[in-house]
Amino acid sequence: MSPKAPIRKPAKDVEGRLVGLAEHVIECARTNKEPAFHIPVRALSNVEFSKSRRIIELKKAKTERQLLSLSTAKKFMQTMLVGDALSVLQREGLSRSLREIYYRTKHTIEGSNENTFDGQEESDPIIEDLEVTLEALREELHVRAEAAGSLVGPMTIVDDGDTIDCARLGKGGYSVPSIVEPHDVHIKKCTADFVLLIEKGTQWNALNEDKFWKRFNCVLLTGNGQPPRGVRRFARRMHDEYKLPVYVLVDNDPWGYYIYSVIKQGSINLAFESMRMAIPDAKFIGLSSRDPQSHGLPRNVGIKLNDKDIARARELKGYPWFQKKEWQLEIDFMLKSGLKYELDSLANKDFRYLTTDYLPKKLKDKDWLD
Amino acid sequence: MSPKAPIRKPAKDVEGRLVGLAEHVIECARTNKEPAFHIPVRALSNVEFSKSRRIIELKKAKTERQLLSLSTAKKFMQTMLVGDALSVLQREGLSRSLREIYYRTKHTIEGSNENTFDGQEESDPIIEDLEVTLEALREELHVRAEAAGSLVGPMTIVDDGDTIDCARLGKGGYSVPSIVEPHDVHIKKCTADFVLLIEKGTQWNALNEDKFWKRFNCVLLTGNGQPPRGVRRFARRMHDEYKLPVYVLVDNDPWGYYIYSVIKQGSINLAFESMRMAIPDAKFIGLSSRDPQSHGLPRNVGIKLNDKDIARARELKGYPWFQKKEWQLEIDFMLKSGLKYELDSLANKDFRYLTTDYLPKKLKDKDWLD
Repeated sequence: MSPKAPIRKPAKDVEGRLVGLAEHVIECARTNKEPAFHIPVRALSNVEFSKSRRIIELKKAKTERQLLSLSTAKKFMQTMLVGDALSVLQREGLSRSLREIYYRTKHTIEGSNENTFDGQEESDPIIEDLEVTLEALREELHVRAEAAGSLVGPMTIVDDGDTIDCARLGKGGYSVPSIVEPHDVHIKKCTADFVLLIEKGTQWNALNEDKFWKRFNCVLLTGNGQPPRGVRRFARRMHDEYKLPVYVLVDNDPWGYYIYSVIKQGSINLAFESMRMAIPDAKFIGLSSRDPQSHGLPRNVGIKLNDKDIARARELKGYPWFQKKEWQLEIDFMLKSGLKYELDSLANKDFRYLTTDYLPKKLKDKDWLD
Repeated sequence: MSPKAPIRKPAKDVEGRLVGLAEHVIECARTNKEPAFHIPVRALSNVEFSKSRRIIELKKAKTERQLLSLSTAKKFMQTMLVGDALSVLQREGLSRSLREIYYRTKHTIEGSNENTFDGQEESDPIIEDLEVTLEALREELHVRAEAAGSLVGPMTIVDDGDTIDCARLGKGGYSVPSIVEPHDVHIKKCTADFVLLIEKGTQWNALNEDKFWKRFNCVLLTGNGQPPRGVRRFARRMHDEYKLPVYVLVDNDPWGYYIYSVIKQGSINLAFESMRMAIPDAKFIGLSSRDPQSHGLPRNVGIKLNDKDIARARELKGYPWFQKKEWQLEIDFMLKSGLKYELDSLANKDFRYLTTDYLPKKLKDKDWLD
């Protein structure tokens, strides 16, 4: 399969947009207008599930942030400070974490006891505001999260000038960075047939050790829990650029369903990112709530659903993207059984059961949910 | 620097020791003796800080585990089950997680409603018992933890037959596996001058992006928080085999001091591992409680010590391995200032301050604590 040309706005565009925001405020001041700008609303009320695109999207509502208003003046100032720090990252070609940006922009305002920011919980939303206002992904703003993913498979990438053969990285694998835009990580070659995105690092370890990816010619990817942005974005890029199907393997519990749904259509909180992160064609390969029975797992390796699990499962049943009949049955089956199962519980059959039985059968039978 | 020959018992020895335990029990039964074996006591009472070796060690006390005793019969049975599962891992050359071993050994005892194990909190201590009884590290028993570390630097390793140049892995780096015994990961070549072991992944990212390791010819290693066993063991191996000094960079808070102390002399809970994991020559390169002042960090980027911090700092002051005058002053200074500081707060000076100012000055002045 041949790669699609990556679509990406060059870095200077983002800097231009940041500077543009400042210039707009200066222009207001110069022409005696009240300095103000508009920011898209990031709230459940302004989010919708697009049936045609099959992702969660931001709608069009905007709010005004004014300098000369008691309720928005502080946020106005904070937006300017964060914008300034982000433009430094662009100019110097650096990337830094949310926490470092918080510390960089924190100071006591001269002649007062007021801090510009009292905690990171004040600066994080400002960065999200700027993402949606400037239509720039967090990664394009050079803001990092923790890197928490590993990858192996038949794939060659170029990262920071280094050519890395991901089929030759032993049991460790490639540590997936937080920022994997095409400008940062180029996928030079990929001969895999599919991507297996695994919730837990322990299963990734087992599958890598058993060389599952060699036998089934796939890329093994994990984010050690809820996959971080870098892992999601990388899976999306393999899907886009090399047309690889993405199969998601999670625990059989409401949180596993949720992880799958975020990979597939994005999250409510960060709806703006869906268009660059979500993979509407991703498939749920397991654990399904019917698997324990069909694979002869004893009930005593299941874990009783607690009240939170039950409430969460019912909530998921109501989401527009879980309305397919198969999904309603899947969730109902869990609720009826009263049990959830971890991937690790397959070890009850045999230490290699996941590698030699469970996954081969699933793939052969195309036994997944969409 | 040339490597020391790695000291390691071959894998069949570990299998032999596991089988030996079973044979001992069979022999007891055959000769009409009560089946029992001795297990070293893993408790504070049986731990001491060795001043000469400068590590926390297990003392000699042992406890007897009998089959025909109401208080130890269940644990006796559990020890046999876990020993059996561990011998499968040896025979098949597999490694698996604590959780998978729990699931593998769980079943309902025939003709009863009793489970062999009710939770992982019952199987984990049994694995630790077997570690100390058989004098085999958890890694030698093929038991994995999550992999949670990243590494870059001038170093070539062989992992599972793949030769990996850790100086050519871009911004991502090598994902450090949980098991890095010489048999699993061979350090083929290392031309670094020292190891910098960094608490937080975000700082590791920044230092890697700024190519700090190229300018200062070092290995950058992080465990994303409290370093997991694989990261500690790998640092120890670089220290042993290539005589590299290890500098530890942590937040300036009691938890940072504690992370440093575990890297340096091991932990009370797992004293048995110290001899293979601890690095008594490791140095604390910062953040020191004097750094904020000497580097002109404003007090408002400090965080007020809470009651737990203060109690923990006082507790650390009492530990035998913190009795040096410099350490007492270091901890007192934090308590007096009433503030703790995160590494990230150095960004308040400048986004590159850690790379261009803080660390170069520390290294030049040899400004560390021992």
